[in-house]
Amino acid sequence: MSITEAPRADHARQIDHLVADLALAEAGRHQIRLAEHEMPGLMRLRDEFGPTQPLAGARIAGSLHMTVQTAVLIETLTALGASVRWASCNIFSTQDEAAAAVVVGPTGTPEQPAGVPVFAWKGETLTEYWACTERIFDWSAESAAAGTDFAGPNMLLDDGGDATLLVHRGAQFERAGAVPATTAADSAEYAVVLDVLRRSLDREPDRWQRIAAGIRGVTEETTTGVHRLHELSEAGQLLFAAMDVNGSVTKSKFDNRYGIRHSLPDGLNRATDVLIGGKTVFVAGYGDVGKGAAEALRGQGARVIVSEVDPINALQAAMDGFQVARLDDVVEQIDILITATGNTRVVTADHLLGLKHLAVVANVGHFDDEIDLAGLAAVSGVDTVQIKPQVHEWRLPTGRSVLVLSEGRLMNLGNATGHPSFVMSTSFANQVLAQIELFADGAAYPVGVSVLPKLLDEKVARLHLDALGVRLTELSDEQAQYIGVDPAGPFKRDDYRY
Amino acid sequence: MSITEAPRADHARQIDHLVADLALAEAGRHQIRLAEHEMPGLMRLRDEFGPTQPLAGARIAGSLHMTVQTAVLIETLTALGASVRWASCNIFSTQDEAAAAVVVGPTGTPEQPAGVPVFAWKGETLTEYWACTERIFDWSAESAAAGTDFAGPNMLLDDGGDATLLVHRGAQFERAGAVPATTAADSAEYAVVLDVLRRSLDREPDRWQRIAAGIRGVTEETTTGVHRLHELSEAGQLLFAAMDVNGSVTKSKFDNRYGIRHSLPDGLNRATDVLIGGKTVFVAGYGDVGKGAAEALRGQGARVIVSEVDPINALQAAMDGFQVARLDDVVEQIDILITATGNTRVVTADHLLGLKHLAVVANVGHFDDEIDLAGLAAVSGVDTVQIKPQVHEWRLPTGRSVLVLSEGRLMNLGNATGHPSFVMSTSFANQVLAQIELFADGAAYPVGVSVLPKLLDEKVARLHLDALGVRLTELSDEQAQYIGVDPAGPFKRDDYRY
Amino acid sequence: MSITEAPRADHARQIDHLVADLALAEAGRHQIRLAEHEMPGLMRLRDEFGPTQPLAGARIAGSLHMTVQTAVLIETLTALGASVRWASCNIFSTQDEAAAAVVVGPTGTPEQPAGVPVFAWKGETLTEYWACTERIFDWSAESAAAGTDFAGPNMLLDDGGDATLLVHRGAQFERAGAVPATTAADSAEYAVVLDVLRRSLDREPDRWQRIAAGIRGVTEETTTGVHRLHELSEAGQLLFAAMDVNGSVTKSKFDNRYGIRHSLPDGLNRATDVLIGGKTVFVAGYGDVGKGAAEALRGQGARVIVSEVDPINALQAAMDGFQVARLDDVVEQIDILITATGNTRVVTADHLLGLKHLAVVANVGHFDDEIDLAGLAAVSGVDTVQIKPQVHEWRLPTGRSVLVLSEGRLMNLGNATGHPSFVMSTSFANQVLAQIELFADGAAYPVGVSVLPKLLDEKVARLHLDALGVRLTELSDEQAQYIGVDPAGPFKRDDYRY
Amino acid sequence: MSITEAPRADHARQIDHLVADLALAEAGRHQIRLAEHEMPGLMRLRDEFGPTQPLAGARIAGSLHMTVQTAVLIETLTALGASVRWASCNIFSTQDEAAAAVVVGPTGTPEQPAGVPVFAWKGETLTEYWACTERIFDWSAESAAAGTDFAGPNMLLDDGGDATLLVHRGAQFERAGAVPATTAADSAEYAVVLDVLRRSLDREPDRWQRIAAGIRGVTEETTTGVHRLHELSEAGQLLFAAMDVNGSVTKSKFDNRYGIRHSLPDGLNRATDVLIGGKTVFVAGYGDVGKGAAEALRGQGARVIVSEVDPINALQAAMDGFQVARLDDVVEQIDILITATGNTRVVTADHLLGLKHLAVVANVGHFDDEIDLAGLAAVSGVDTVQIKPQVHEWRLPTGRSVLVLSEGRLMNLGNATGHPSFVMSTSFANQVLAQIELFADGAAYPVGVSVLPKLLDEKVARLHLDALGVRLTELSDEQAQYIGVDPAGPFKRDDYRY
Repeated sequence: MSITEAPRADHARQIDHLVADLALAEAGRHQIRLAEHEMPGLMRLRDEFGPTQPLAGARIAGSLHMTVQTAVLIETLTALGASVRWASCNIFSTQDEAAAAVVVGPTGTPEQPAGVPVFAWKGETLTEYWACTERIFDWSAESAAAGTDFAGPNMLLDDGGDATLLVHRGAQFERAGAVPATTAADSAEYAVVLDVLRRSLDREPDRWQRIAAGIRGVTEETTTGVHRLHELSEAGQLLFAAMDVNGSVTKSKFDNRYGIRHSLPDGLNRATDVLIGGKTVFVAGYGDVGKGAAEALRGQGARVIVSEVDPINALQAAMDGFQVARLDDVVEQIDILITATGNTRVVTADHLLGLKHLAVVANVGHFDDEIDLAGLAAVSGVDTVQIKPQVHEWRLPTGRSVLVLSEGRLMNLGNATGHPSFVMSTSFANQVLAQIELFADGAAYPVGVSVLPKLLDEKVARLHLDALGVRLTELSDEQAQYIGVDPAGPFKRDDYRY
Repeated sequence: MSITEAPRADHARQIDHLVADLALAEAGRHQIRLAEHEMPGLMRLRDEFGPTQPLAGARIAGSLHMTVQTAVLIETLTALGASVRWASCNIFSTQDEAAAAVVVGPTGTPEQPAGVPVFAWKGETLTEYWACTERIFDWSAESAAAGTDFAGPNMLLDDGGDATLLVHRGAQFERAGAVPATTAADSAEYAVVLDVLRRSLDREPDRWQRIAAGIRGVTEETTTGVHRLHELSEAGQLLFAAMDVNGSVTKSKFDNRYGIRHSLPDGLNRATDVLIGGKTVFVAGYGDVGKGAAEALRGQGARVIVSEVDPINALQAAMDGFQVARLDDVVEQIDILITATGNTRVVTADHLLGLKHLAVVANVGHFDDEIDLAGLAAVSGVDTVQIKPQVHEWRLPTGRSVLVLSEGRLMNLGNATGHPSFVMSTSFANQVLAQIELFADGAAYPVGVSVLPKLLDEKVARLHLDALGVRLTELSDEQAQYIGVDPAGPFKRDDYRY
Repeated sequence: MSITEAPRADHARQIDHLVADLALAEAGRHQIRLAEHEMPGLMRLRDEFGPTQPLAGARIAGSLHMTVQTAVLIETLTALGASVRWASCNIFSTQDEAAAAVVVGPTGTPEQPAGVPVFAWKGETLTEYWACTERIFDWSAESAAAGTDFAGPNMLLDDGGDATLLVHRGAQFERAGAVPATTAADSAEYAVVLDVLRRSLDREPDRWQRIAAGIRGVTEETTTGVHRLHELSEAGQLLFAAMDVNGSVTKSKFDNRYGIRHSLPDGLNRATDVLIGGKTVFVAGYGDVGKGAAEALRGQGARVIVSEVDPINALQAAMDGFQVARLDDVVEQIDILITATGNTRVVTADHLLGLKHLAVVANVGHFDDEIDLAGLAAVSGVDTVQIKPQVHEWRLPTGRSVLVLSEGRLMNLGNATGHPSFVMSTSFANQVLAQIELFADGAAYPVGVSVLPKLLDEKVARLHLDALGVRLTELSDEQAQYIGVDPAGPFKRDDYRY
Repeated sequence: MSITEAPRADHARQIDHLVADLALAEAGRHQIRLAEHEMPGLMRLRDEFGPTQPLAGARIAGSLHMTVQTAVLIETLTALGASVRWASCNIFSTQDEAAAAVVVGPTGTPEQPAGVPVFAWKGETLTEYWACTERIFDWSAESAAAGTDFAGPNMLLDDGGDATLLVHRGAQFERAGAVPATTAADSAEYAVVLDVLRRSLDREPDRWQRIAAGIRGVTEETTTGVHRLHELSEAGQLLFAAMDVNGSVTKSKFDNRYGIRHSLPDGLNRATDVLIGGKTVFVAGYGDVGKGAAEALRGQGARVIVSEVDPINALQAAMDGFQVARLDDVVEQIDILITATGNTRVVTADHLLGLKHLAVVANVGHFDDEIDLAGLAAVSGVDTVQIKPQVHEWRLPTGRSVLVLSEGRLMNLGNATGHPSFVMSTSFANQVLAQIELFADGAAYPVGVSVLPKLLDEKVARLHLDALGVRLTELSDEQAQYIGVDPAGPFKRDDYRY
C-alpha cells in the first residue's frame, strides 16, 4: 500500500479511497455491528435525529483515528445527512478492516463500494500520512457530481488539530505568497507539511484561503488540539468557529480517564505479555489520562509511582495513595514507564539509559516526542530490533535493553485497538452534537473556542445510562427549587469540576 | 451551659466568651499543638506573612465549626494581625476543649484568659446557637477599648452562610421597617432567626445596615453557602464582596472528598462500632462528598450503592464500579444509609420505615433536612431512645428500629471530630489567603462572588507537599514554552477540572 | 479500682466480681443489645442449642478481652447451660460498661447483680491483671453453693494463653516443689506470674495440679496462644485437650483480617485524628493481620510499605502492589508505623529514633514487645507526655517526638473498642462450637491440639450469610458428584487455603 | 495441519514433531528470550542445578499448554539433563511460534531442527488432540537411538491429568482385556479416548501396563488434575507417585489468582474490545481463580456479582465487598459472565437464554462443560456465527445473542496467551523442583499424592523477589527463637493458609 499506487483514475465510478484491502470489509462490518451495540449514544442520536437530518448539506472533512468506533461515528454523521471524507490522525492507529468496511458501506461490496471515502491504513509513512490528510480537503468529485463549485468541506472534525493546521498554515503562507524554507530546527514531520503546502501553493495559490472561507467550524477532540486552537484564537489568527469537544465533561472525564484505564493495560498485554502485578510502574503526569493509567495499573497489582509538575495534581496523586517522585530519583527501579503528559521530552535519553533491563516504555500522552527516542537514537552504540510490529527492543551501550512500544506514539492505538467502543460513544456523541450545533446553529458560535452547553453534556451522559442499568433519581419540584435548578437540568454551575 | 447563664458582667476584665469549661484548655492546647504539625499550610503562612501582618486592622467575625483545626485557623488569623470573634456554625460540632484553649490562648490561663472571644459549645439549642452567632457581631468591647466607634466586624468568615444570612436579613427587615411574622411554613430554626432580628429591630433599628456597611467582604467555606451567595448576587441583593473558598480546587476537591473519606468511617465507628465490611451501604449523591464517602466505604469492604440526579455524576458512579439505583428500589437491602446531597428530604419517612432493622442512618451532606426526621417523628407509634449522645434508636411501628446519628446533622462533626487536620489545612489556607485578598486588595474584588486566583490555589497545594514527601517535577523552559505556561504556574486554564 | 480494695466479703450474697462501676451496666446493656443484632452467629446458636443445653455442667474459666462482644459470648455460653467466670486477657482492653452489664446480667440490677462473675477493668496494673486471672480459677463459692468439691473450672476459654500458662506453670512448679527465683532475664510480667505462683505454692501446694486434672480442655483464640500450645504438645507437656479456634478459617481469615481492617483505622482515628490519606505507612508483617492492615490503610489513601521475613508472604505483598522493604531502609519516610508480626523487637529503639517527627507508632500484632519501648525508655534524654489516655508523646533526644498508642499493646483494643461485633461473631461462634465439641464429645479429642471439623467451620460461615443478604448457590447432585463432595458440605479438602 | 499428514517417515533424521509451521521459530525464539527475563525462577534454577544435572536420565512426557512460557520450562528441564516429549493439554492453547521454536531449539534451524519433540498446534480437533497426547508416550526413536529398550517415559508432567488418565485407563482396560463399548452417556471426548485405547489394545495388549511400570511419578499442575489423583489414590488405583504442584502456595495462590487477574481482562479485551468499566459482571466461583477474576474486573471499574456454593468462600466474597447472588436471580442484569468453578453446567442453557443482548460468556475454570453450550446447541432456533477465531456469536430464538469465547474452553489461553511469564515462573519452578524431587529422591515419595516440602515452596518465592525489587527482612536469632523457627525457614506450620 502506498499513496502513490492509488488507482485514482478508477474513482469516478466508485468511492474514492486509499485503504489496505477492501476484502477486509466483511470482518470490519462484523466488528462495527458489535460496536454499535456498545455505542448507545451514537445509535440513539441516529434514532432521534435521523428523521430531521440536521446535517443535510454538511460536508465534513474528518481527521481522527480510523478505528471501528470511528466507523460508527462516520456512519452516524451520514445517517444525519452529512457527506464525509476521512483520514486517520496517526500513522499507526488505523484498523484496516474498519477502514475497508466504511469504504464498502453497509450495503456495498468490495467490488462495488457504496460507503464513505477513507484515506488511511495502519503503518503510513509521514509523507503518506499528510497526503491522506490533504485528500480529505479534495471535494472535487463530490462538487462535480453535485454540479456545484465548492472548494472543499464546510465542516472539520479534528483530533489533534492536523486538519486545522493544514488549513491555517496553508492560508497563512498563501497570504504571505510563499512557504518558508525548511530549516534544521523543523521536525521531520513539519518538513513534510511544508512540502505539501509548497506543492499546493505552486498548483493553486489561493486554495487554502478558499477552503478556509467555506468552513463554518471545526470540532476538536483532544486537549492538545484545543490548546492549539486557543493559541490561534488568542493570537487573532483563528479562521472559523471551533468547538472544544474535549471541554465536555462526558469527553475529557470519560474518554481520557476511563478509556485509558481500559486500553493502557490492553496495549501493554498485547505488546509484551509482561505481568503487570508486582511491578514498579512510573506514570508521568496525573491529569485525566494519568489518573486512568494509575488506577488501571494499581488495579492489576502494580506499585505505581507518579510524577507531576502541577502541585495540585501532585497533591491529588499523594492523596490517592501514590508515591510522587521525580523520574531521575527512581529511574533505576522502574519496570514499566508510561508517559501521560502531553508535553515534550518528559523521558530523556539519560532516563532511558538508566532504566532496568527490558523495562517497557510507552506513551499514552499525545505526541511521540514525550519520549526522546530521537535523542536516544543519537547515542553511540544504540541498536534496535523489531520484536514484532510496534514492539522494538532498543539495545543500549550499557548492555541493557528497553522495549519501546509504537515507536513512542500512542500505544493504546498502536498496540491495542484504542479506547473501547462504549467510552468512545460518549466522546463521539459529543462530536455529533457539536457538529450539529456548529453547522445548524452557527450564528450562536462566533469565531472563537466554545464548549457544548451543559445541558447537551448531560444529554450525552443520559444517552448512556440505560445500557449500564443505571436508574437515575429524579428531583422533586421542591428539591429542584431548593437547589435552584430545573428538574430537567442542567444541574450544576459551569465551574463545577465533577 | 446555657446562653442565659453566661457571666456577661465579668467580661470587661477579660476575654468575652461562652464556652463549656475553661478547665479543658490544657487538653485542648495539647491537641492544637499536634494539629499544628498536621497543618503545614497554616503554619507556613504564619512564617511567610507573620512579619508583614497583612491582616492588621481586620476585625473578623467567624462562624465555623469550633474544632481543634479551627483553633489553628483562628490563631493563624491573629498571628497575621487580625482581631477575631468566633461562633460555631453547627450546634453539635464544637470540641469544647478547643473552644476553651482558644479563649485561654497559648499564653493565658483559665483564670486569666488571653486568647480570642469564642461563643460555642457542643450541644447548643437553636436559640443558643443564634444568640452565639449574634455575639460575633458585637464588637462594642473592642470598640470601647480602642476608643473608636465601629459598628461591628469588617470581615466575615462563614461556613454555610449563617453569619451572612443574619446581616442580609437584618438589613433587609430594617429597610422594610419590620420583621415578618413567623408563619407555619417557616422552619423551627427560621422562627428563631426572626425572633433574634425582631428583638434587634426593637433595640437598634439600623444595626444590621450599619454592620453591613462596614464589611469589606465574606469568605465562604461551603457549597451551600456559596449557593446562597450566588442567589443573593444574581438577585442584586448581595451587600459586599464574597470569596467562594469552596471554589478553590484545594478546598472542594480535598476537604470535601478526602476529608469525608476519612471522617465518615470515623464517625460511623465511634457512633456504632458496626462492622462496615460486607454491609450494603447506600450513598445518596456522588458529588465530591459522595465520591469520598463511596471510596471510604468500599475501602472498608462494603458493597456500595449510589443514587444520583445528575446523569453525568451517575455515569461517573457507574464507571467507578458502583451500582446506581433509586433508594425506593433497594431500601430493604440497606444496612447503612448515608446522605451526601446538600438537598432536602432525600430520605423520606417512608424510606426510613422500609430500611432493615437497626440500619444506621447518617448525613454528611449539609443540613439536617436531608433526612426527613421531622416527617418520621410525625408517624404514629414512633419512639426514640438515646443510646449515647448523638446516637438515637428510633423505634418504628413496623417493629423495626433505625439508628440515627447526630439527629440527622453532619455526623462527621457530631459523632467524630470533623475532618482531620491535614485536609483542613488545605481548606483553611485558602480561607487565610482569601481573607488577605479581600481585606488587603479589596479594590480587586467588587461586590459579587469571586474565587481565588489559580496561582494561589496552586500555592496552597505547594505548601502541603513537603509534609507528604512529595517531590514535584519542574518544567524545563522548553517544556513550559511547549505547553504555553510559566514554569512557576499557573499550569492550567481556569476551566480545567482536575 | 484495685484488686486489693475488692469487697470480697460481700460476695457470698451475690455475684463475685471486680469491675470499675456497676452503675455503667445500663449503658453496657444498650450496647450489648445492639451487638446481639450484629452477632447472628451467636444468636442463632442460642436458638439452635438453647433447648438441649449442651454446656450444662460446664464450668468455664474465660480469659479474653472483656468487651461488649465478649459479653454476648459469655451470655451465649450461659444460655447453653454453662457456668462462667471471666477475666480480660489485656490490661487495657476491658470496656467497663460491658463488664458491669455482664455482672449485673439482663435481669439483675446494680444493687442485686444476677449475672456472671467478672474480674476486669480498663487500665489494670500487671499485678492486678494476674490477680484477676487467678480469680477465674477460684470456684470455691460455686462449689460450696453446689455442695460439691470441685477444684476449679472444667473448661478453659483462652486468648493468648495466659490462663493456660498459669495452670501449666503452676502444676510444673508444684511438681518441682518450688517456684524458680526471679532473674534479671525475666520480663517484668513474668516476675509477677512467679510471685502469684509462689504465693499459691505456699498456700496450697497441689492446687494447680488438681485444677489441671479437672480440665477437659481449652479452646484458644489466637495464633500466639496456639503457638504456645503446639510447643507444649510437642514437648509432651500439654495437660489436656486443646482446640485451635484460630485454626478455623472463619476465625483466622475473618477476625484477623477483616477485624483489623476495621479496627486499625478506628484506633488510629480515635487516638490521633491524623489524616491517613497521603501518608506513608509502614506495616511490619503481611500475615492475615498485616493483610487487613495494609488493605485498610490503602483504602484510606495511604501509601503503604510492607516488611516480611517469609518470602511467600513477601511475594504476596508485592503482587498486591505494595513496596516491600526493610524498616531500616525507609524509616525516615514513615508517618505511621504499624506492627503486625507477633514477634519481638520488630521495631527497635534505633528505628524509633529515626522516624519522622510525630510519627504514630502502634501495634496490632500481639504482645507489647513488638515495639521495643523498654529499649527506647533506656535511651538517655527520652521523655514521655500523656496526650490523653493510651496516647503518649515520647520526646526524643533528637528533638523529634513519636506518638505511641496503648503503650505498645494492642491498639485496636486500647484505642478503639476492638474488633466489631460482626467479625467477633464468626470467631466466637467457633469458640462456642469448640467448647461444645470438647465438653460434650471429649473422647473424640485426646490430649493434643485439634481444629474444628470443616463442616462446623462452614456452619459458622453459614450462620452469618443471611444477615449480609448473601444468597448461597446450591450444588445439584450431578455437580456434587462431579467434584466428589456431599451437597451439604464439607466442600473442600483440609489443605485448602481459601 | 492434521495429525494424519505428519511426515512421520522423515523423523528418523531429525526431531520428531507435529507443529503448525517451523518457519515461526524465529518469532517464537524472540518471545522466549523476552520470557526468560520474566521467568527468574526457572533461570536461576538453571544456574543452580545446571552443573549437577539432577534430571540426567529422566525421560519426561509433558502434557501442558504449549506456550512461550512452557517453552522456557521445557528448555529448563533439558538444561538440567532431561529428555522431553511434549503435547499441549488443550486444543486451543498452543502458541504455534513457541511450539516451532522448541522443536527447532536455540541452536537449530527450521531445516535442521535440534530441539525437543513437540506435538501441538492451535486449533486441534479432539481426535488430533488425543493422538498428540499418545505421541508423548512413544519413545521408540529415543530408545532405538540409545540402543536400549524402554517402553516409554519414566516421568510425567501433567496439567489436568490427561496424560495420567491415558496411562491409567490404558492399563486398566488391558488388565480387563477389553476397552468398554462407547455409550450414549459418554462425552464426545471420552469416546475419542476409548477409540485410542481400543486401537492400542489391538496393537499392543500390554503397552500401557509396561509404560506404567516404568514411570516413577507424575507432577500435576492443576486443581482438577490433583482431584483426579486423589480419587485414584483413595480408590487404591494410583499406579505411581504423584506430586501435587498445585498444592504449593507459590502455585495455587499465585498462578491461579494473580495469573487470572492478568489474563482474564487480557482475553476479554483481545476477544471483544468491550469496555469492562461500568459493566455488570458475574463471576461464578470465589476460589483462587474467582478471587483473581473479581479483583481484576473491579480494578477495571466493573460492578462484580459473585456466586458460591461454599459458605466460607461466600462470606469472603461478601467481606471483600461483592454482592453474592445466584445466577438465576440476576441473570438479566449481566453484561459479562465468567465461570471459575471447576464444576459442570454452572451456566445452563436457560441462563444463556436469559442474559442481556450480546453478553460476553467465558470460562476460566477448567473444562468446557462449565458452560452448557451443548445444551444450548440443542435448543431449537439457535444459530452461531464466527466473529473471529475463538469468538462466536450465538443467536438465540429470543432475538438476543450472546458472545461465547473459546467455545467455552479456557479463554485466557484461547483468546489471550495464557498467564504471563512471571507468574508461570513461580508455577513452573515448582514443577522443576517437583520433577527433581520425584526423580532424584523417589524413595522419599511412595505411591500416593504428596506436596513439595514447605522449604522448597519458600525457595520458589525467594527466587522471584529480586526481580521485583523486594528486600526481605531477616529474623534475628532472638526473633527466630521467639517464634520457634529456623532463621532460614520454613517459617510457617503446614496448615498455615497465607
